[in-house]
Amino acid sequence: MKIVIDMMGGDNGLEATISATNSFLSMHDDVELFLIGDETKLESFKSNPKCKIVNSETILAMDVDPMTALKDKKSSLMVAISTYLDNKCDALISAGSTGALLAASVFKIKRIPGIIRPCLITSFPTIKKDKKFVVCDLGANIENTKEELNQFAIMGSLYYSIRYNENKPSVYLLSNGTEEEKGSPLNKEAYPLLKENKRINFKGNIEARDPLFGDIDVLVTDGYSGNIFLKSVEGTAKVMSNMIKESFKRNIFSKIGYLLSKKGFDDIKVKMDYKNVGGAMLIGVNGVVIKAHGSSDLQSFLSALNNAYTLVKEDIVEKIKKELN
Amino acid sequence: MKIVIDMMGGDNGLEATISATNSFLSMHDDVELFLIGDETKLESFKSNPKCKIVNSETILAMDVDPMTALKDKKSSLMVAISTYLDNKCDALISAGSTGALLAASVFKIKRIPGIIRPCLITSFPTIKKDKKFVVCDLGANIENTKEELNQFAIMGSLYYSIRYNENKPSVYLLSNGTEEEKGSPLNKEAYPLLKENKRINFKGNIEARDPLFGDIDVLVTDGYSGNIFLKSVEGTAKVMSNMIKESFKRNIFSKIGYLLSKKGFDDIKVKMDYKNVGGAMLIGVNGVVIKAHGSSDLQSFLSALNNAYTLVKEDIVEKIKKELN
Repeated sequence: MKIVIDMMGGDNGLEATISATNSFLSMHDDVELFLIGDETKLESFKSNPKCKIVNSETILAMDVDPMTALKDKKSSLMVAISTYLDNKCDALISAGSTGALLAASVFKIKRIPGIIRPCLITSFPTIKKDKKFVVCDLGANIENTKEELNQFAIMGSLYYSIRYNENKPSVYLLSNGTEEEKGSPLNKEAYPLLKENKRINFKGNIEARDPLFGDIDVLVTDGYSGNIFLKSVEGTAKVMSNMIKESFKRNIFSKIGYLLSKKGFDDIKVKMDYKNVGGAMLIGVNGVVIKAHGSSDLQSFLSALNNAYTLVKEDIVEKIKKELN
Repeated sequence: MKIVIDMMGGDNGLEATISATNSFLSMHDDVELFLIGDETKLESFKSNPKCKIVNSETILAMDVDPMTALKDKKSSLMVAISTYLDNKCDALISAGSTGALLAASVFKIKRIPGIIRPCLITSFPTIKKDKKFVVCDLGANIENTKEELNQFAIMGSLYYSIRYNENKPSVYLLSNGTEEEKGSPLNKEAYPLLKENKRINFKGNIEARDPLFGDIDVLVTDGYSGNIFLKSVEGTAKVMSNMIKESFKRNIFSKIGYLLSKKGFDDIKVKMDYKNVGGAMLIGVNGVVIKAHGSSDLQSFLSALNNAYTLVKEDIVEKIKKELN
């Protein structure tokens, strides 16, 4: 299995990607890694026969304009893309700019034939231990059509099946009410398509307050609404985590209180940590392209690498192709 | 000041509305209340010269179809509406069906001349003590135009000024990125209008993860996206509150831990309680119409009543009319 890793993207730079790559190497024997970055800083991998180092000169800014990014051929991302294509690789992971990764993947790696638009998919934590659900699209698109939502539902179901070993994952459409007639004009068009689609297990509309309770598998949405959902959940979780920390720091009694109740709160931290969900896959392009969290640490980048490994092993791209026929 | 109260709407029925009305009466001398509901259950108010009881026969279901609701003239909501109109009242409060209240208000009380579409506005808690921000539209509309968003910004600014004594509240547009060129097609159209609008203090785009940190005053959005924002925040806050409770209930040590750190956590509960923000105003109709939370308890319904009182005192409807000229 050939995997290309953009070692330079991400806010935490090489520290996170190098240690994650080392852990990943110790876990898998059947991988060949192309490590893209400043070669002077990647020397520790030189002696490893499973690694090839490919030098890059620049690093794209997180807020780079995607079209500008495509022209910066010496950037770690663009070198990663050409290395991916030249060596017929299986997966590509980057913690760099989402917009640049999207644009470069769609333009260079191309879509799976038949896929109208790729979308971003990731797992979300829920209140139930070990239960996750996936959301697609998280924001690869601004506007979508009903046919695109229908494809997101198919790809999301496949992704969920592979990640969580569930044969017929339940699919819901994000809406402003649960009744069939609720929703945006797009929702109303997409609903009958999803309902008639025999490749998925469509269950109807769901409101944004419910998925985190852990009773659904796949949440389908246009990219703009999905992005608002993602960021609202992230923001609220972060605010509440901060408030919990502050509550325990208040005085000596609350600090002792923390020690006494630590286990439960450590569990919350683990449950709500959206960094440890394997990054977001750009699903629908002709390969396994994973966007790791921008502020990836070792654990988070490693989970993205392992996610890519599983998705390649389970041949997700071929499975999508088959579902489209 | 004449206020009409739908005593029957809401999941908790008369218990919450009666006790809230009693508290409200004890706080204000300058009010005349029209209490709509089953008159046999409102007898305790009969002797109060500030109260008039108006009998109603049915209660609309929370998920009633708005058009059906309009025809049920003996329902507490429709009697409330006609009482409001017949007596030239100043405010109307209901904890019943949002859809029915919207439809009845727009059809019967009508819009303020010049307002294209009313919208729902409410206050949100933030991580900063006593700092709130308001969001409009929360879901009175499914689709909006740029001109409507521009009016929401003006009405939202007025509402925020009255509630929080802030002369030039900052206005942000909910989007998928902070840069000017980001956003849905609607956002891109609305941005220049908001930027040129001298009646508001427009600051640009904001992503959904940021408002809860307490640095903005007014968040403008189309009703569909606003609804997703509202419910994502509610859902996440609820899930995390449940997890906090569970963490403390774990064993005897964590229970002691709770007692030691209780104060801080009680603060979180107060901060994040979206029920105590005065309900949501249907702003843009020709009167002060407040939707109290469906599961209103005493405190929550009382805060809606007091919100209505303040908004009438400060003459919000006249202020909106003035801003439109």
